[in-house]
Amino acid sequence: MTDIRILGAAEIRELAPLSAEAIDLVADGFVRLAAGEVLQPPVLSLDMPEVRGELDVKTAYVQGWDSFCLKVSTGFFGNPELGLPSASGLMILLSATTGMPLALLLDGGYLTDLRTALAGAVAARELSRDDAKHAAIIGAGAQARWQLRALQLVRPLARVSVWARDSARAEDFAADMAVATGLYIDVHNDITEAVRGADIIVTA
Amino acid sequence: MTDIRILGAAEIRELAPLSAEAIDLVADGFVRLAAGEVLQPPVLSLDMPEVRGELDVKTAYVQGWDSFCLKVSTGFFGNPELGLPSASGLMILLSATTGMPLALLLDGGYLTDLRTALAGAVAARELSRDDAKHAAIIGAGAQARWQLRALQLVRPLARVSVWARDSARAEDFAADMAVATGLYIDVHNDITEAVRGADIIVTA
Repeated sequence: MTDIRILGAAEIRELAPLSAEAIDLVADGFVRLAAGEVLQPPVLSLDMPEVRGELDVKTAYVQGWDSFCLKVSTGFFGNPELGLPSASGLMILLSATTGMPLALLLDGGYLTDLRTALAGAVAARELSRDDAKHAAIIGAGAQARWQLRALQLVRPLARVSVWARDSARAEDFAADMAVATGLYIDVHNDITEAVRGADIIVTA
Repeated sequence: MTDIRILGAAEIRELAPLSAEAIDLVADGFVRLAAGEVLQPPVLSLDMPEVRGELDVKTAYVQGWDSFCLKVSTGFFGNPELGLPSASGLMILLSATTGMPLALLLDGGYLTDLRTALAGAVAARELSRDDAKHAAIIGAGAQARWQLRALQLVRPLARVSVWARDSARAEDFAADMAVATGLYIDVHNDITEAVRGADIIVTA
């Protein structure tokens, strides 16, 4: 057991950035799943309403691969009141030859954020028009930011409309993401106005 | 995430030995479960027949406690041919306040072996006669040894009969466990003879 490799969040962010290559890898996963090459049991979910928390554990094995992964993620919805993100988690890489744990990825939820954004980009790449330029983002939290950054890798975006329940958060989103993406971002107080004329609508 | 405590197998064996106190803790768990104080979702199981492997993930939350645990265990049935134990695994201790991982217990399956043995001892303590002296052990693998050692903590054993499909393994069991327990152990080639007159029968 002493040869388990342990990677921290900073190392994982460096090794697995948001990238076009990562989008291809997630797309490949969906293709294998659809082709029946993946063994994937139902998610283990533990709801803890008294502490406003939940645990979700997911795994899958791509037949013929030499390792498989277990993803442990938690959502504790009182965390923002403590100045902490709601989501946390880690992943365990296991040998598909011996079952021994090979690596612990202490990503703190980063890989869940990344994977979710990549799946959004795969959907947009396969389902939206090639020249889609105007995205409407519904929501202004962490995943809304991830989705926009991933979307920009697959479509020639020029304009972004954003709406969120909390308009102050929508304003923060617009300020941050204008810098991060170089795009023009307008904040809407009316959700109907936000999606009017959009080529792609992301709900996050 | 950098403040996750990581414990190895040697440390865990020292901190959590087979003991009467550990039997009481497992009994307490069963009582809380029966009293409805425990949230316990179904086990996540991944069967990988092509690699003769399986993964089982279990969790539970005792309401009101400040942490909860996730147990990851694998069984790869070709491992003995490679000189490795079939079972492997680790546990993750998580905060029930924030969901953050608090500790990784790289026990390599030790805690599963221990917990299984402790549950056997609880059953024997609650269901067998106080003066039970003669145990029949069916099986001669690792868990058969664990069960006998745990049983000895709750009943005044004097005699042990053992039967296993592989009689050479039964002989090894008898030799090892006579030393480990100080008990008289006789090996049987006939399972009916092995259980004749036994006060407690353990199948492992």
